Amino acid sequence: MRTIFWEDCIKMIDQTLLPETFKILEIRSVDELIEAIKRLAIRGAPALEAAGGYGVVLATREKKFEDFEEFKDYVKERANQLANARPTAVNLGVGVERVLKKVFEASSIEEARKKALEEAEKIAEEDIIRNKLMGGFGAKLIEDGDSILTICNTGSLATVEWGTALGVIKSAKLEGKNVRVFACETRPLNQGSRLTTWELLRDGIDVILITDSMAGIVMQKEMVDKVIVGADRIVRDGFFNKIGTYTLAVLAKEHGIPFFVAAPLTTFDWEKKMEDVVIEERSADELKYCHVKCRSCIIAPENVKVYNPAFDPTPFKYVTALITEKGVIFPPYEREVPKILKLRK
Amino acid sequence: MRTIFWEDCIKMIDQTLLPETFKILEIRSVDELIEAIKRLAIRGAPALEAAGGYGVVLATREKKFEDFEEFKDYVKERANQLANARPTAVNLGVGVERVLKKVFEASSIEEARKKALEEAEKIAEEDIIRNKLMGGFGAKLIEDGDSILTICNTGSLATVEWGTALGVIKSAKLEGKNVRVFACETRPLNQGSRLTTWELLRDGIDVILITDSMAGIVMQKEMVDKVIVGADRIVRDGFFNKIGTYTLAVLAKEHGIPFFVAAPLTTFDWEKKMEDVVIEERSADELKYCHVKCRSCIIAPENVKVYNPAFDPTPFKYVTALITEKGVIFPPYEREVPKILKLRK
Repeated sequence: MRTIFWEDCIKMIDQTLLPETFKILEIRSVDELIEAIKRLAIRGAPALEAAGGYGVVLATREKKFEDFEEFKDYVKERANQLANARPTAVNLGVGVERVLKKVFEASSIEEARKKALEEAEKIAEEDIIRNKLMGGFGAKLIEDGDSILTICNTGSLATVEWGTALGVIKSAKLEGKNVRVFACETRPLNQGSRLTTWELLRDGIDVILITDSMAGIVMQKEMVDKVIVGADRIVRDGFFNKIGTYTLAVLAKEHGIPFFVAAPLTTFDWEKKMEDVVIEERSADELKYCHVKCRSCIIAPENVKVYNPAFDPTPFKYVTALITEKGVIFPPYEREVPKILKLRK
Repeated sequence: MRTIFWEDCIKMIDQTLLPETFKILEIRSVDELIEAIKRLAIRGAPALEAAGGYGVVLATREKKFEDFEEFKDYVKERANQLANARPTAVNLGVGVERVLKKVFEASSIEEARKKALEEAEKIAEEDIIRNKLMGGFGAKLIEDGDSILTICNTGSLATVEWGTALGVIKSAKLEGKNVRVFACETRPLNQGSRLTTWELLRDGIDVILITDSMAGIVMQKEMVDKVIVGADRIVRDGFFNKIGTYTLAVLAKEHGIPFFVAAPLTTFDWEKKMEDVVIEERSADELKYCHVKCRSCIIAPENVKVYNPAFDPTPFKYVTALITEKGVIFPPYEREVPKILKLRK
């Protein structure tokens, strides 16, 4: 299932409407794309990388220009706005930068438009390929009969096509291993209950939905063999992922359950530490109403204070291994990660 | 705020309508009461104890009888049905048993009805008094400026009037200590976001709403000084409370944060161990729809499998102290709890 692609405009699945409605959005301007990213119609670090790339393509095409310098100034400004649509994941900016670079290497508007689209398509293709590679490496860690707990959505819907953490699970299934997935609902926006369960049911993989707060009991009752999660950003001393991931990591450690992070090398930001990263805080409304599209359903008093960070940092001491498209990385990460990062183009 | 009382019938706050609507239900039959308990219009172990008591009063009055033996058979049968409305908390059955005993000690229908009501009122009064005592003992553990994390609702709405874990927080506040509460929303039925925040705002206590999955990050960031929770049943090797409590206990241990359980002595079931207790599994619908009253708002595929235990067991090794109406109990519980239980008349 392809989540995002180019067909004279950006076409992508509107993830806010799932599981009820499967609808392909047509995005024709950078403003529309920023709005779609902010309301999480598209989300997931690798999918955002592709969106960032295609977004710069939109920037090259949404307005008529005669002057190449004016054109480049415009595209750069729009690219900047796009890159800042969400602050925590590094990938959106990576996609934007790659395509913007091609625009600036070109010598005419026409060439820039052509090169931009080629680069954006390349980003999307690369994501598909590296997810499959990651899946292959990760699948070796999965045993037949494993029950795997995960959070958020890290499947097709979070990437261009295959998935990161869910990609590993799908690859294990393809290899003939029987797996069962515990999907944490992933409050407050329910990407687990709305997207992951939908996707796994579609793929014929056994899935059981639980609340985030049930992760403890299922581990205590030895119903979970492994935890696999994605990552929005991996830094020198830990990684950032969907809020609740850190809690799962602490629980996994307490129960002696292996805890894996599956993410492409573009997710690594090895110059930074956890303390350097700004954690996006989202609207209080996400905890006051059932979910974004249904404000009529009130679940908290209007005037209550809310703390709503979208991600949390998990120090590396909780991480058994990192699964990437260049192989599985075991500790010590300080020594092992740079070796793999050198393989990055 | 009195949550449940007798006025020719049982009157109680319909907790499923909060925080939007404050409505007093009038319950005139055991069937209505069982239905109200099952749909959680009233919940919380101590409130259920009072409900159990008043429910037997209803059983003595909902039908005309000539024969005392027939009357007693009828009341006993109804009492049995009532006691089984929810399986995990011990308190509902305790309330039922206490009033039923008075019915069987009586020598006429009229006397039984009178004695039943007296005993039910006594149960309610005792709950108010012991909550205040518990609050006083517990408040000594709270320091000025403490941030306290809690789950579910353990305040007025969970008891007859004052509260257990929230009662401790209220008592600390009454003693002039400034406290701040992190209320976990408590999926899937959001007792934290719907009830605890509503009650604390009403009482003028500083409260911040978080998702259950944010308990990790607020502890990691040292925003939490103590965890206080209630209990539905305390057995020889641990205690049962709202699903998610065990996760909080593991997190508190990992971060060196004291973890307290506030519960009346009626909650103790010292003959049993954790493995002896049946954990209530509730409807999958609770995770598929926004919340019970709003089935139109779909948050998971119709056909997804769900695991939905309402409670989880937490072994005593995670518990810093037990707060009761007879004092605070520190480990070793095996030795210390029986000393306190002897004070139970």
